[in-house]
Amino acid sequence: MTKAPLIRVADAGRPQLDPAPGATIGGMLSTGCSGTNAVRYGTAKGEWFLNATVVLPSGEVIKTRSRARKSSAGFDLTKLFIGAEGTLGIVTEVTIRLAPVLPTTVAVVHFPDVKKATEAVIEVLNQGVGIQCVELLDDLFMAATNKYGMSMRKWPEKDSLFFKFQGHSAKSLDETAAVVKSVVERHGGFGFTLAKDDQEATSLWADRKNALFSGLALLEGDNGKGWSTDVCVPPSNLPQLVYETKQDLSEIGLISTIVGHVGDGNFHALLLFKTDEELEIARHAVHRMVKRAIALDGTCTGEHGVGIGKKEYLYEELGHGTVELMKTIKRSIDPLGLFNPGKLYPDAPGAAKKADPRST
Amino acid sequence: MTKAPLIRVADAGRPQLDPAPGATIGGMLSTGCSGTNAVRYGTAKGEWFLNATVVLPSGEVIKTRSRARKSSAGFDLTKLFIGAEGTLGIVTEVTIRLAPVLPTTVAVVHFPDVKKATEAVIEVLNQGVGIQCVELLDDLFMAATNKYGMSMRKWPEKDSLFFKFQGHSAKSLDETAAVVKSVVERHGGFGFTLAKDDQEATSLWADRKNALFSGLALLEGDNGKGWSTDVCVPPSNLPQLVYETKQDLSEIGLISTIVGHVGDGNFHALLLFKTDEELEIARHAVHRMVKRAIALDGTCTGEHGVGIGKKEYLYEELGHGTVELMKTIKRSIDPLGLFNPGKLYPDAPGAAKKADPRST
Repeated sequence: MTKAPLIRVADAGRPQLDPAPGATIGGMLSTGCSGTNAVRYGTAKGEWFLNATVVLPSGEVIKTRSRARKSSAGFDLTKLFIGAEGTLGIVTEVTIRLAPVLPTTVAVVHFPDVKKATEAVIEVLNQGVGIQCVELLDDLFMAATNKYGMSMRKWPEKDSLFFKFQGHSAKSLDETAAVVKSVVERHGGFGFTLAKDDQEATSLWADRKNALFSGLALLEGDNGKGWSTDVCVPPSNLPQLVYETKQDLSEIGLISTIVGHVGDGNFHALLLFKTDEELEIARHAVHRMVKRAIALDGTCTGEHGVGIGKKEYLYEELGHGTVELMKTIKRSIDPLGLFNPGKLYPDAPGAAKKADPRST
Repeated sequence: MTKAPLIRVADAGRPQLDPAPGATIGGMLSTGCSGTNAVRYGTAKGEWFLNATVVLPSGEVIKTRSRARKSSAGFDLTKLFIGAEGTLGIVTEVTIRLAPVLPTTVAVVHFPDVKKATEAVIEVLNQGVGIQCVELLDDLFMAATNKYGMSMRKWPEKDSLFFKFQGHSAKSLDETAAVVKSVVERHGGFGFTLAKDDQEATSLWADRKNALFSGLALLEGDNGKGWSTDVCVPPSNLPQLVYETKQDLSEIGLISTIVGHVGDGNFHALLLFKTDEELEIARHAVHRMVKRAIALDGTCTGEHGVGIGKKEYLYEELGHGTVELMKTIKRSIDPLGLFNPGKLYPDAPGAAKKADPRST
């Protein structure tokens, strides 16, 4: 439904949202995406989309705001379409704020377990050094990378953190590396590897960027699939969530890997399955993971969106009144239920499913 | 209408929104405030308010989101109340994301004119060094500071920039200072003063923080008032806007000063008046300033809000369909027009004013 919108350059620089390869501008806005850069730059729900041109269900075309970075001219209608998954309007054009492209480098460090790794992250982020990304890759993922990764390195098959540092100069990158090395080692980190040059940094980061493909390759043969899902909790609750989830996944008899945007309290699990029975096992494991995240004051989805698969969790996560308010807004903008019907808005718990499209 | 809400601490650190002294949490959310720190941390419209508890006009109490930093569980209802000026709900509690408190220092530099100063800012921000704040104070304001400022320094009475630098260490602050000094001097900056220690940094910054009071003091005697207003444009259009506005203000026969959050393209003008005739002159000058900002793809208010005084500009700035969509949402949430009536939502241009409160 969304034609790839134009990008209008606001200032010199580069858009700093970094979702998975293949994301479109319309999809990035409509899911409220984020990705590895969110530690430094925040998400699509922040201040990167300065405005959007949107076709409303009435057929009217509106532009949500001017090109100023800041405005207090009422509530920001751009934000209404971010995360609305195309249910409130069709985005045809956006203005994205850009940020300067700065020198970066990459470091990798390994830990005895995910709990220690995630605890180290919290302390690193409080140092105020130039961290652009902090990614957790679990032991099983590191094994996948040893087999199928891009760098051809042989990594310790241990829960690991991949850092991208950012700074004005080589000197500031060195300072960041020294601070991070010292913090992670206090939390049991070992084998701290800092890229020697840009080429090595690119090669190390490629191991992270190709996580999904390396993970999928673990399922040898052609007849399998991967169930990729994500949840997010306050960073202080992340160590418990990741630890309990890894325990759970280790007991269900499926191959699964965890890749986390741990600087934001967000992680993805990839569960591999071949048969309908295994699909059911995966479905139940994902359900338990979502329940665990919501119980830890988190969300059923940090960046993937609701669609159909996570509708059932919204009432539990957000509360009855909040979901009803979302539906009130949907009905006021799209009274005939024309846009992306069946997505995002759940039926009230216990309500019989109605045929009327306006009940979405 | 807004009781001061509780702050629940999400992580170690400090809230990094920095509006004028006297701002309340409820007001900061309801106007979508920002302030001097927005260069580094963004505004209230960004990702600092993780959630809000809100009493709706129906009497229902909702909490907009979980405490996760990121969520793609639908569009973010927190954002609906940010900048809505209390017209959609009464905010009773919020969760604010905090950021670590880092070492800072302050530098001041002077320019031949505001155009050169604002051009220097654009280049400084593209360097990627640790800039927390960049504030423009015009020549008249510097004269006011020489008379009434907190530092007791005698500054050159020239258009000046006040920088707050931020970094992990003294070394990184030094690097930032050296980079900024070199850039501003390429743009005609002179007299670059860097604080020798924390005490001097605090004293220099106090001259900026007390801008409003020093400016008001220019109006000697008791029977005068100041009209404070703000506009915002894309940073690349700021040099032209500030230059033309200063020209205009110099010709109207009132004392006026300009203080700008120039890193964001935002500035405040303070126009002093004593008589009804002077008030009318000020009103017309503000009107011309707003028109000028909107013509430069900007907004009638960067951070002060709409209230009653800027309602008349919304149709011109946002377009008919966008304002009507805001009013559609207002009516769907508050069909009886109970909350903060008469504020924010303008009557359609040319429409006769209706007595029905639902027409707001």
